[in-house]
Parts: sequence; structure tokens; C-alpha cells
Amino acid sequence: MEKKLLSKSEEGPIRCKAAVCHKPGEPLVIEEIVVAPPMPREARIRVICTSLCHSDITFWKMKDPPAIFPRILGHEAIGVVESTGEDVTEVNKGDMVIPIFLPDCGECFDCKSNKSNLCTKFPFRISPWMPRLATSRFTNLEGEVIYHFLSVSSFSEYTVVDVANLTKIDPVIPPNRACLLSCGVSTGVGAAWRTANVEAGSTVAIFGLGSIGLAVAEGARLCGASRIIGVDVNPEKFEIGKKFGLTDFVHAGVCQNKSVSQVIIEMTGTGADYCFECVGMASLVHEAYASCRKGWGKTIVMGVDKPGSMLNLSSFEVLHTGKTLMGSLFGGLKPKSDIPILIKRYMDKELQLDEFVTHEVKFKDINKAFDLLIEGKSLRCVIWMDN
Amino acid sequence: MEKKLLSKSEEGPIRCKAAVCHKPGEPLVIEEIVVAPPMPREARIRVICTSLCHSDITFWKMKDPPAIFPRILGHEAIGVVESTGEDVTEVNKGDMVIPIFLPDCGECFDCKSNKSNLCTKFPFRISPWMPRLATSRFTNLEGEVIYHFLSVSSFSEYTVVDVANLTKIDPVIPPNRACLLSCGVSTGVGAAWRTANVEAGSTVAIFGLGSIGLAVAEGARLCGASRIIGVDVNPEKFEIGKKFGLTDFVHAGVCQNKSVSQVIIEMTGTGADYCFECVGMASLVHEAYASCRKGWGKTIVMGVDKPGSMLNLSSFEVLHTGKTLMGSLFGGLKPKSDIPILIKRYMDKELQLDEFVTHEVKFKDINKAFDLLIEGKSLRCVIWMDN
Repeated sequence: MEKKLLSKSEEGPIRCKAAVCHKPGEPLVIEEIVVAPPMPREARIRVICTSLCHSDITFWKMKDPPAIFPRILGHEAIGVVESTGEDVTEVNKGDMVIPIFLPDCGECFDCKSNKSNLCTKFPFRISPWMPRLATSRFTNLEGEVIYHFLSVSSFSEYTVVDVANLTKIDPVIPPNRACLLSCGVSTGVGAAWRTANVEAGSTVAIFGLGSIGLAVAEGARLCGASRIIGVDVNPEKFEIGKKFGLTDFVHAGVCQNKSVSQVIIEMTGTGADYCFECVGMASLVHEAYASCRKGWGKTIVMGVDKPGSMLNLSSFEVLHTGKTLMGSLFGGLKPKSDIPILIKRYMDKELQLDEFVTHEVKFKDINKAFDLLIEGKSLRCVIWMDN
Repeated sequence: MEKKLLSKSEEGPIRCKAAVCHKPGEPLVIEEIVVAPPMPREARIRVICTSLCHSDITFWKMKDPPAIFPRILGHEAIGVVESTGEDVTEVNKGDMVIPIFLPDCGECFDCKSNKSNLCTKFPFRISPWMPRLATSRFTNLEGEVIYHFLSVSSFSEYTVVDVANLTKIDPVIPPNRACLLSCGVSTGVGAAWRTANVEAGSTVAIFGLGSIGLAVAEGARLCGASRIIGVDVNPEKFEIGKKFGLTDFVHAGVCQNKSVSQVIIEMTGTGADYCFECVGMASLVHEAYASCRKGWGKTIVMGVDKPGSMLNLSSFEVLHTGKTLMGSLFGGLKPKSDIPILIKRYMDKELQLDEFVTHEVKFKDINKAFDLLIEGKSLRCVIWMDN
């Protein structure tokens, strides 16, 4: 009876396979786990496919809190609703959904506002629990708790996600494209589109040409930027970047005694209208800021350095240059309203997604996806579930 | 003949009184100087009145470069064109003008753009010379050079100013009100109006309630802010600030073991929509940033700390809060187009200027104006020329 009060799922617990991270930096172990039925305002999802993002690697390697083990990582995915808990009206069994780490409750002042994508009811935090009830839906076969990750935990055949973290989508888009919109590509495209609001004809500089940086290029291209400058230590990235609209390349580290900002200012005459720091290196933020055009240049911080790291800017420069520094989480996108727009633009052959998928593996080979990303061989590796 | 080529002034050099700063921190000396005729694209101005701004004090006290002596300080003023150099079409003899430290050439890409107030042709710099020819128009009676200050040098009965630094105005406004628009009040009002673009109904927090901070309050009031919180170490400022729309006050230093940002977040529930740092203290910028609402909060840096000082922000906070940090020089105003708007708003009894003028002295008592400002007794002290 008590269970009935908590869930309208008729399925009970599900036993399925998950790739569990038991210790930092050690290969994930595919093992059987138990996924509890969804609690109120939650849905249990059958994951179709998931892709690997750098944040998964960061938390896989991390030894100190907020790292916690055993944990089910993974936060870029697409799935089908298997069952729903009490009070769920937004999605139904069989709906195609994208789980997204950033909540969008739709009720709070921020979610209702068009100025913010940071839900106040469920502030984004890195927690090992479900966001609403602060408990886990995962146990091993001995009944011991396995922790959640970023409210998604998609490295499992089934997972439970809060409705605030679910975006229902039109299943016209192939799943191995849709899953990219769950984090990385949306973050990059959104940063150019929503956070920076890149003007047509403007100049953009992107520091770091991983998937996020390339997605920024793609977003800037869609916004009509006329010049998109990529900065990376690896010149091979320029060829890849051209697919996403890169027009110029600065080979960081080989700038003949000039700083990258000096090179960009020489290239552009004035500096770039928008600079995106996509590496997550605090020292590089200053270089991006210096590369930015005085008067109206915007620097957008996309990555985070290790906990406690500080950004240092000269107060004289901040005052006298009229530049702006902004942070961008999930590219400033509001998941439930903006993801469907991105899907439409993909279906209309405007937004490029195919080009990000460099590898696809079966679930049993998930550790190979880690190797590919760590070795810099992949942009996005899609991991297909067996079911 | 050569002089004729360089100037169409028929007056030749003018001998007049100026308050010269010979050594850092020592009283200004009123003495006779020679003001050369204006060179091409310059005008010689008879100063009607000038007012004292904190930047004058800063450069009066400064011992190391960019300080330089002997110098004629002063940069808030109003005057009448006495003569013009070659190629001057914008102003004519007898025109009422406000000299402004920030150039507005009207020709460069930035001056033509509506996005920037930072002239590219004459980038703002702290120079002891005229901006176009990099020479001085001031000598003492022995013919030795006296240096300019911020392209204005208004502590003199006559001064020479580049046309890029002159805004012609309608003489309907009293001179001892108009001169305030030359720097401080415009900077504060503009920061709320142009830089931050304060929305009606929003909450504003102002750190430091000197003239600039109070002018920010006035600007926020004009923009329709519904709550304007002042932060200062001196609680007497609250009474003064109420005239300019302050609704709340935080007595910094008496916050019962709470930081100012904690107090502001408690007062507002979410933090202020806009925070203005008007003290010029790098460490306070972080407190302003922390007081700012996540999602869309803007922190505007209005003051500058000592050369080389750095702003330190946590990269995690920048990324995860969606906040914006901006600098504002001359409040983001474009002098030649925005000052006439402020004058109209004053004449329409919308913009308050009278309340800023707490003292008025004769030119011979200029050092008293310094004492009043240093002792915190004045907001603006107007110094009337004798002529």
C-alpha cells in the first residue's frame, strides 16, 4: 500500500544492466542493478543511447568530494518513458524524452522569466541524489545504494529522472543525434545564440576546439557571424572546425613571442566582438578578455577550472574598456522550450549534428568511449544500449 | 604667417589666471599663465565655472606617473568658446560648451555605432598633452610648459579643448548645474541608464554613496527602479540618498557578522538585479558581484583601484550564476548626443541636479573646495571663475 502511495508505476523495481563507476579513474563495470519505480514527479526512462561528455570524465577521475562512489555517470542521453510516478502530467509512458542536467520546473519566477535559465525551485547543484526527495533510485543486488550523477545517470539501461529534468521531444530526430542536445552541443550552440546573442556579421573567437568549442562555432555560424576564429594547441582542429564555420585559426603556443590576444587583435584590427573560453582554464579567460573588442566585446566563460580557481582581471581594464564578462550554463538555454527549436533546426538541415558523432559503440564497450575522448580521438562517441 | 596657418584665432595668446598644481598634495597656486591660441580642430574656452571631482583629488595626490607637474587639473566645467582653430565647424565663438574628458570624434566606427562610447580615433588615455597634436597650450610667464589634464584642464580662466572633447549645449541650463554633467553626475546617471539599462520595477544596489553613487541612484530612479539600496560606511548618506530615490540602506561594517552581500540577499530574497561598485575598491567588486541576482544580475564597475589592482572572481561562480560583469566609462554615454538629453530632462524637472551642489566658492578659494571634498562635507562644490 505504501508503495502505491508513492508511485503509480505498476512495474515495480527493474533489474537491468548499468556501467557503474566504483573507484576514480578505474574502468566502469557493467553489472546488474535494481532501479526503483519513480517517486512522485519522477519518470523512469529506458535509455536508448547516451553519449560521453567531458564532465563525465572529470567526475570519473575526481578523487575528492563532490566525487562519490559507487556512482552511475552519464548525462547526455535520450530515452523512452517506461513509467511515471504520482502527479506526473508532462510525460506519459512511451514518450521520447531528453534528460537534461539543468532543471526547468516551469513554475518558479526564473523559469517563467525569459531572462534566466537557472531554476530557483531546484537550483543546479552537483548532488548524488534525486533533486526533489534527495534519495537514490539505484541499488546493487545486495540492496546497497548507488549514487546518481547530475540528475541523469544515463550509463544504465534504465534510470529515473525528475520531470523538471525531462524535455519531451518529437521522435522524428534520430536518437544518436538527439542525445547530443542533452548537454554539450546545446551548451555550445546556446552560448552563441542565447547567452552572447551573436550579431550577424560579427567576429567570434573560440578558445579550445573540443566539442563545446566547435558547437559554439556552429552556433555562431547559425547566428550569421562573418568571421569565426578558432584557437587551439592542435592545428588539426582547424580542418575539423571548418565544417562548423571556422574561418581562421590561431595555433596557440606557436605565436612567435606574441600572446594569442595580440595575434587576434592584429588579425581583426580591433579584437573579436565575442570571445568564448571553452577550455575551463582560468588563466585563459584573461587572454579571451584581452582578445575582445573594447566598447562592446563580450567574453563568455564556458568551462570551469578546478574548484576554488579564480579569474583575475585588471580593474583598470574592466573599467576602461567597456567589455562584458558573462558565465553561461547550458548555453543559457531553457531546456523545455529551446531544445525543440534546436531539433527543428536540425530537421530543417540548418543545425549540424551528424558531424559531431565521430564514433559509436555498444554499451559493453563503454570504456572504449572513455579512451577515445581522453586520447582526443573523438568529438562525441554515442553509446547504444542493447535493449 | 605660420601662426595664421595653424590658427584662425585673431586673439593671440591670452594671459590669465590658473590654479596650478606644482607638487602632489600641495595647495594649488593661483598664478598668471599664458594660454596659446587654439590649433586646428581645437577651441579656446573661457571657463564660466568648474566643479571638483574625485579624480582631480586622485591626480592631485598622486606622486608617480601618470602624475606629472606642473599641471592644471579640473575636468568638470562649462564655458564659452572664445576662439576656434582651423577646420572647426562644430562650434563658433560665443557658443556655450561642456568640455568632456571622453572624446567623441563622430567619425570613427565606434563613435558612429550606437553600441560604444569609446572613440577609436582618440582612445581615452591619461595624457599631459592635447589629444591631437600631443603638445601643451599652457606656459608660465617664463615660457615653461604647464601640463594638461584629461583634455580639459578647467582650473584656469581659459583653456584649450579639442573639438572631439566639446559638447555644444543650449544655454538655457544654469552654468552651475550644467558643469556637473561634464563628468560625475553624467557618469552615474549614464551607468544606470546606458550601461546597465536598468529595467522599471527592478532592484538596484549601490556600493558607495559619493556623488557618483548618488547619481547612479538618480539614474536608477529615472529608469523606474522600484528598490534602490545604498551601501556605505557612513549612515548619514542614507538621508542624503533619499533625495535621489534610495529606499533602503546597508550600513557596511555594522552587519552583525554578515557580509554585505548576505544582507542584500536576505533583504531582496534573490539579490539585486543590478549592483554598482562606485568606490573604486577591487575587493568590493566581488561583494557587489555576490550581491547580484543569479540568472541575470549585472555588476557594473564604476571606479578604479590603484594601478595594477586586480578583480578576483571565482570561476565557478562566474560560470554557474549567469551573472554579468561590466565596466562603465562616462556611464556609457556618448557625450555629444546624450548630454543634450540629460539637459532636457533637467529642464523638464525630471533629472535632479540642484541637489548635488552643496557648496559654491570663488576661484581664489579653490583649495577650500579640495578640503570640503576630502573631508566628505561636499557632494559637488562649484568653483566660479571671476571673469
